[in-house]
Amino acid sequence: MKKVAVILSGCGYLDGTEITEAISTLIAIGQNGAEYKVFAPNKEVPETNHLTSQPTGQQRNVMQETARIARGDVQPVENLNAQDFDALAFPGGFGAALHLCNFAEKGSTGEIDAQVQRVVKEFHDSGKPIAAICIAPAIMALAFGNKGVNITIGDDTGTASELEKTGAKHSNCAVERYVVDTGNKIITTPAYMYGTAKPHQIFEGVSGAIKELLQMA
Amino acid sequence: MKKVAVILSGCGYLDGTEITEAISTLIAIGQNGAEYKVFAPNKEVPETNHLTSQPTGQQRNVMQETARIARGDVQPVENLNAQDFDALAFPGGFGAALHLCNFAEKGSTGEIDAQVQRVVKEFHDSGKPIAAICIAPAIMALAFGNKGVNITIGDDTGTASELEKTGAKHSNCAVERYVVDTGNKIITTPAYMYGTAKPHQIFEGVSGAIKELLQMA
Repeated sequence: MKKVAVILSGCGYLDGTEITEAISTLIAIGQNGAEYKVFAPNKEVPETNHLTSQPTGQQRNVMQETARIARGDVQPVENLNAQDFDALAFPGGFGAALHLCNFAEKGSTGEIDAQVQRVVKEFHDSGKPIAAICIAPAIMALAFGNKGVNITIGDDTGTASELEKTGAKHSNCAVERYVVDTGNKIITTPAYMYGTAKPHQIFEGVSGAIKELLQMA
Repeated sequence: MKKVAVILSGCGYLDGTEITEAISTLIAIGQNGAEYKVFAPNKEVPETNHLTSQPTGQQRNVMQETARIARGDVQPVENLNAQDFDALAFPGGFGAALHLCNFAEKGSTGEIDAQVQRVVKEFHDSGKPIAAICIAPAIMALAFGNKGVNITIGDDTGTASELEKTGAKHSNCAVERYVVDTGNKIITTPAYMYGTAKPHQIFEGVSGAIKELLQMA
């Protein structure tokens, strides 16, 4: 049975993982006959109230919050070795651009979290495919911009042109579709980059991307 | 377009809503051509660390945490009127047995939260169907035990016999299936009452239950 490592970044799209994207990923992995393990960075980050969209001044632990999605079964990213898996997946949410890299703050001059960087390089160097959802393709641009990686974050021209400064190529893409870079083995889908999309549309796009990921694995 | 009211109870199965069950419900509503609004009780409840399964001694607000799943679009249960909707759905998680009723503490002698009780009665009295997932069928037993409502929570004999003390009838049911009480218009599916089930199995059971709910609506 193929195994997918899934890296999350909390629980809630404003300060962590976008929940529908994460659950769509986990459902699709099982529907395609594969299994998964969930990983997250073990760090404290600022909390956002999801009713008001305002910071609370409190902090939450990313791994602890991720455990709400993963029903307790989550490991720190340090424990993730590419040799144990066939593919890697990054659901989105602001957490992906805040805690897995700092694209939200620094744009195209941002850096990837050191452990996430190590993991992405391990999968890529061993020819294993990676899927990135919503804003998580920013991690792919920061990692593989110098290889001209082809990605999508939907049709937001501001974000797309910032991503292209890394050397990445951006393709517009509908919420139900995904973009494949065959040479780099990178699959991306825009999901809630379309903020008014419905959960079943998110599921359709993510489901297609994960099916492709597993075919490529 | 048919409209479903979805009542959640937080974000995370130990102190709120089971996240995969909630997202499966929202995906299935859209896949069946319907739309939804999310509601939750506006109250403070004890927080549980989902890595350790231990109480933290802190509190969280149920509506604020529900907003993580609903991307900010959540109303207090007080604002929910059955006349605005065609059907009602309760995803599970311990939150359903802790914050929507007190079955977790008092079993068959428990009471339903006053506003949830009002809403359930409004839907039932106007002949509109209700779906309840995982442990949320306990709310159906407390509300309609005196009508001998037929429900499932899977195959846990202890919980089933406690529920039957209300007058409810329990039928064993696999995770991918659901039970229909046609007379009472109540649909139940066990979901994570099978603790080792996989997200795609949860989705299959919930998806079937929601399809039935919308056909009945």
